[in-house]
Amino acid sequence: LVNEMNGAGNLMDFLDEPFPDVGTYEDFHTIDWLREKSRDTDRHRKITSKSKESIWELIKSLLDAWSGWVVMLLIGLLSGTLAGVIDLAVDWMTDLKEGVCLSAFWYSHEQCCWTSNETTFDDRDKCPQWQKWAELMTGHAEGGGAYVLNYFLYVLWALLFSFLAVSLVRVFAPYACGSGIPEIKTILSGFIIRGYLGKWTLLIKTVTLVLAVSSGLSLGKEGPLVHVACCCGNLFCSLFSKYSKNEGKRREVLSAAAAAGVSVAFGAPIGGVLFSLEEVSYYFPLKTLWRSFFAALVAAFTLRSINPFGNSRLVLFYVEYHTPWYMAELVPFILLGVFGGLWGTLFIRANIAWCRRRKTTQLGKYPVLEVIAVTGITAVLAYPNPYTRRSTSELISELFNDCGALESSQLCDYINNPNMSRPVDDIPDRPAGPGVYNALWQLALALVFKIVITIFTFGMKIPSGLFIPSMAVGAIAGRIVGIAVEQMAYHHHDWIIFKNWCRPGADCVTPGLYAMVGAAACLGGVTRMTVSLVVIMFELTGGLEYIVPLMAAAVTSKWVADAFGKEGIYESHIQLNGYPYLDVRDEFTHRTLATDVMRPRRNDPTLAVLTQDSTTVEDVETLIKDTDYNGFPVVVSRESERLIGFVQRRDLTLAIKNARQKQDGVVSSSVVYFTEDAPQLPASNPQPLKLRRILNLSPFTVTDHTPMETVVDIFRKLGLRQCLVTRSGRLLGIITKKDVLRHMAQMMNQDPESIMFN
Amino acid sequence: LVNEMNGAGNLMDFLDEPFPDVGTYEDFHTIDWLREKSRDTDRHRKITSKSKESIWELIKSLLDAWSGWVVMLLIGLLSGTLAGVIDLAVDWMTDLKEGVCLSAFWYSHEQCCWTSNETTFDDRDKCPQWQKWAELMTGHAEGGGAYVLNYFLYVLWALLFSFLAVSLVRVFAPYACGSGIPEIKTILSGFIIRGYLGKWTLLIKTVTLVLAVSSGLSLGKEGPLVHVACCCGNLFCSLFSKYSKNEGKRREVLSAAAAAGVSVAFGAPIGGVLFSLEEVSYYFPLKTLWRSFFAALVAAFTLRSINPFGNSRLVLFYVEYHTPWYMAELVPFILLGVFGGLWGTLFIRANIAWCRRRKTTQLGKYPVLEVIAVTGITAVLAYPNPYTRRSTSELISELFNDCGALESSQLCDYINNPNMSRPVDDIPDRPAGPGVYNALWQLALALVFKIVITIFTFGMKIPSGLFIPSMAVGAIAGRIVGIAVEQMAYHHHDWIIFKNWCRPGADCVTPGLYAMVGAAACLGGVTRMTVSLVVIMFELTGGLEYIVPLMAAAVTSKWVADAFGKEGIYESHIQLNGYPYLDVRDEFTHRTLATDVMRPRRNDPTLAVLTQDSTTVEDVETLIKDTDYNGFPVVVSRESERLIGFVQRRDLTLAIKNARQKQDGVVSSSVVYFTEDAPQLPASNPQPLKLRRILNLSPFTVTDHTPMETVVDIFRKLGLRQCLVTRSGRLLGIITKKDVLRHMAQMMNQDPESIMFN
Repeated sequence: LVNEMNGAGNLMDFLDEPFPDVGTYEDFHTIDWLREKSRDTDRHRKITSKSKESIWELIKSLLDAWSGWVVMLLIGLLSGTLAGVIDLAVDWMTDLKEGVCLSAFWYSHEQCCWTSNETTFDDRDKCPQWQKWAELMTGHAEGGGAYVLNYFLYVLWALLFSFLAVSLVRVFAPYACGSGIPEIKTILSGFIIRGYLGKWTLLIKTVTLVLAVSSGLSLGKEGPLVHVACCCGNLFCSLFSKYSKNEGKRREVLSAAAAAGVSVAFGAPIGGVLFSLEEVSYYFPLKTLWRSFFAALVAAFTLRSINPFGNSRLVLFYVEYHTPWYMAELVPFILLGVFGGLWGTLFIRANIAWCRRRKTTQLGKYPVLEVIAVTGITAVLAYPNPYTRRSTSELISELFNDCGALESSQLCDYINNPNMSRPVDDIPDRPAGPGVYNALWQLALALVFKIVITIFTFGMKIPSGLFIPSMAVGAIAGRIVGIAVEQMAYHHHDWIIFKNWCRPGADCVTPGLYAMVGAAACLGGVTRMTVSLVVIMFELTGGLEYIVPLMAAAVTSKWVADAFGKEGIYESHIQLNGYPYLDVRDEFTHRTLATDVMRPRRNDPTLAVLTQDSTTVEDVETLIKDTDYNGFPVVVSRESERLIGFVQRRDLTLAIKNARQKQDGVVSSSVVYFTEDAPQLPASNPQPLKLRRILNLSPFTVTDHTPMETVVDIFRKLGLRQCLVTRSGRLLGIITKKDVLRHMAQMMNQDPESIMFN
Repeated sequence: LVNEMNGAGNLMDFLDEPFPDVGTYEDFHTIDWLREKSRDTDRHRKITSKSKESIWELIKSLLDAWSGWVVMLLIGLLSGTLAGVIDLAVDWMTDLKEGVCLSAFWYSHEQCCWTSNETTFDDRDKCPQWQKWAELMTGHAEGGGAYVLNYFLYVLWALLFSFLAVSLVRVFAPYACGSGIPEIKTILSGFIIRGYLGKWTLLIKTVTLVLAVSSGLSLGKEGPLVHVACCCGNLFCSLFSKYSKNEGKRREVLSAAAAAGVSVAFGAPIGGVLFSLEEVSYYFPLKTLWRSFFAALVAAFTLRSINPFGNSRLVLFYVEYHTPWYMAELVPFILLGVFGGLWGTLFIRANIAWCRRRKTTQLGKYPVLEVIAVTGITAVLAYPNPYTRRSTSELISELFNDCGALESSQLCDYINNPNMSRPVDDIPDRPAGPGVYNALWQLALALVFKIVITIFTFGMKIPSGLFIPSMAVGAIAGRIVGIAVEQMAYHHHDWIIFKNWCRPGADCVTPGLYAMVGAAACLGGVTRMTVSLVVIMFELTGGLEYIVPLMAAAVTSKWVADAFGKEGIYESHIQLNGYPYLDVRDEFTHRTLATDVMRPRRNDPTLAVLTQDSTTVEDVETLIKDTDYNGFPVVVSRESERLIGFVQRRDLTLAIKNARQKQDGVVSSSVVYFTEDAPQLPASNPQPLKLRRILNLSPFTVTDHTPMETVVDIFRKLGLRQCLVTRSGRLLGIITKKDVLRHMAQMMNQDPESIMFN
């Protein structure tokens, strides 16, 4: 009997996966990158050695090697398709707020008038098939009554859309709210948030994103598209055990998916990859760079073949400028950079303050009401102003564009010289007409409106990105500055600053370029993107010509904003939510040592450790019950304090539970052995429990004299969960990621309690 | 007296930098990234705390903070200028081989005929001011005699240039030879090669690069330009102690300089940054990304303002295509990818074999003769073929370009339909004329010639890059394939493969695009670049339109080449030269443990250790003399084997030498103390030597059970020099970077002796 039981014990010791869930993580826990990596290497090794056995195994190993590319292809296809569908739906629903297409109700305004043959070239926006609500209902297209009715229905539709959006989020997928980028950053850094990238979130986020954008709120679809793409990535991960069973490999896929998301958001694949590299990803092996690029390209081309913008262009805001820029213009560009930096600071501070208030006061309890209220205010204030009534991306597109001769926009109401007979794309500077002055006023009001309302919008319980609102603020400011410079240059050719580069009758100033520079500056101020920002903008314009203005503005904006606080909006939200995110860019420059950070602190009880051959099952169970540590160091003996390994709490719990159920003879007084061989005990003694298999024999250690900057570096680069502290070979204490984060927060005089999760 | 001496001892203990060179590295040694980083943090901390003391210190701290940007600006300016000068000089000297400008001898052929007003529009290459040598000497421009004389002088000039180049390299700067990229990769990974980036190397490399390229050898200037830019970076590092005194910070600057180098080589700043990130850099913090981008942009714009190509274009090969590509064309594109992969494999294997032969046989002893011989063969074979006679970059430029209606090149000798009256940039497919068939033969010969001669050229003792030759091979192959497809499409409109997309009279096939795709494929096959390759090509064409063909070819080429061997040409040369380079991309998948790699091995003598308070100065000196280890672990006592720290050999030597000279009472029998306090000894005892200050109290340790894949990961990510191995708190052994590399080589069944340096 004894022999048999011993045999069973041995068997259990050598079984491959004797009980489920060993090596997985609990929700809101941090993964151990090194362990994930070494598990993947094991898996790879197993497949490689098996592949020599049979043709079938060889095919399986090839499939495994190709699965990464397959996942990328699928992500690209699905996220491109979703982006296209979202664009089409948003177009249609945005126009639905104003009217309907009689020939086919599912046409947007633009599509409706495209298909109409009664559209004149001059006024493509008007065609008899497209009717505003008032016209349809009362028959009168003009007049006060029609205006009020249209106004009322505009607000009503907006309220309906946003109510639907917030209700869907509340009921079906609470994780679908917000931009998702802070959470994705945290997840990519190695945190587990179950369901955040689930199927429900994908579905609900896609639907509610359409609703939220269509409702006319001051938000964009770019951030949420990244979230949607990451959900796609997570979805396709589950097809291959290589990715679904390894949290590290899964994050490689998610990095690439984030790139695909930005790629479809702007039509900028290279910018997307750099965004993923610079902003989102934590662990970005170079292999991922190439795959991300592939996913981003597939996504961009899928989107283009759907062609939601109807211009077979890849990019969201396609622009082409015809005049170069001049050195003297760098002054207004840099001023726009300063504005962008200030706006970034203001926005981050105000938004964080408001979100904190939402978290801590009664306000947070009525998310539906909040959304309804903000939508109501937005719609009521937005309708009277033509620049806020339309969708924000249309607005940006108009602000970016150069005034061609045919442009019918109010912004292009210049007084033309009747003698002019130039090619249409090289129009000299002209004096502004009344329409331009009118537009300037409306733009100024729109600017104030956007600035204020965006602060309250971002963070509500609906999907909301802030790329588009930020860019809108910058584009409005930029266009105003651009027109001002243009008019100054026209009226004051003789001023010394214009004399050198702007002769009368020449096309000196491109206000659209100013709008673009302003947009880059504001986006940079809010997100602190650098290279990816410039590259995205470069891909929008498609020429290196304007890279210096963009870069000047982006650099200035970042410096100005950094002077007031190092953190971008995403990092601020990560901190607000207390996610355990160890920023790669924060330099830790304090003179503390590992001994100052490790636990137990001076007055704490001693470190909870297990011994390798003298702890009983009961002792372990008591330890597990009494403490909430995620793992326990195992030492030779309490006296020598020589470390031999580290065991995870979860693995320990599972192993004991499993042993108690399946292994006869394991009772409370059984001794737990972490040594290689348990001694042969007489049959009368309780059966020993051998747990060397769940013991991590290579725990990470540092000495107590190690500077914290090195410890922080190690945690970041190796993605550790915890690290043991020793002095001349004796175990002294433990430092967890949470301890590191708490210490860093303390050193920055911040609220150390903001780290909620472990 | 004793007291005084004790005081002096204490003083020495607390002095900041009591003897020079502590913490520096010897030539051909590896740096410790963690130590460099922590030294920089110390420096930063010191400056920050000082900056609060006075305005002057504040200004100094601001200057320090800005010095990074200043260095970037200077690098950009200098490397852009040098690239411009090199371009101009190469242009002039290349033409000098054929003739001279009579109006001004310092004009190149193109400049000469620009300034001439006797140039006709049709034949811009001919003008009376430009005379070939035969014409100038004998008065006869045509005829057999003139041809032979021109031929002779062409070869003579080539020999002269290459002789000058190799002599200058031999005499003044042996490090100026080759492309420099393998060495720069190694340096950036943390290796010290003194003088490799020195002023002499910069000067000689610049001069000899001009000579080498002008001599008409099959080599390019792109790789050497990276080396030149890195020399500039190193030069400007010496202006700021922040960079000159810290090998880690210096490498950040060098990473950015490499980006600037590629940026000026191709006029592709984004591609340059990605090249630096993907190919060259080892440790690339995100802060560097932004700075690299800045340096790359400054360099590109400096080059443009010098305008060496005379077209105010930023890029080396500016192309603009007017027709889209079709899905069916992906088949030839992928075939070009396969060709590129095969060429890459062939080139790497043949070149490495030849270089190994050069290293191991008599051949290596006559570098000057070798260069002369190869130049002679190249020039003799190149002259008769118009496609090899001209400079390689001109050839590539012609192959990339679309045939406009005005093009006078032989390659564009199509039979025109006399009734054709289309705009010049939309010419339908036409049948090839005799010139095209002639050109095809010459191109085929040129292809074989380039393939063979490049293998022997790369690796000679002159500056030589292989971007241009690789691209030339691909461009020739691509153009041939392109013309073939074009003619097939013209003559067989009805074939099923052409039917869908190529109607008669349409412009279906762009042979220039095939050349570009072929160039990308070949470059990818040789260097294994991926994203940076596509981005550089994208910047050359300036549109996302052609990114799919490029990517298809690049992916295919990489896969095909990787199937034959994972290493690109740079990694192969690193291995050939035995540099200690730990490739970030090599996956280590073997099942070995730290205990299998650490020294001492089973039969070795025990590990050389120092004890904390029982070793005498003499013991230490004996140990240093008898061993050649780079450092020694310090333990509590030989019995307990408890590790307390690690001391570098160099620091130890310097400290003892210094103490012997300056500190009275330190004699051979003095005890060396690594403890915090040395015991108060009676005056009769020899004065103790306290060396805790040079002791690294936080040496890196792993347990003997740590899998080697984890150890490799730690070495890579943290940039360690060595790592100590312990088992339950006892010191067992040591693993150095060299051990890791040797083990990896063993595991890959390669020659373990190829790791020469330590």
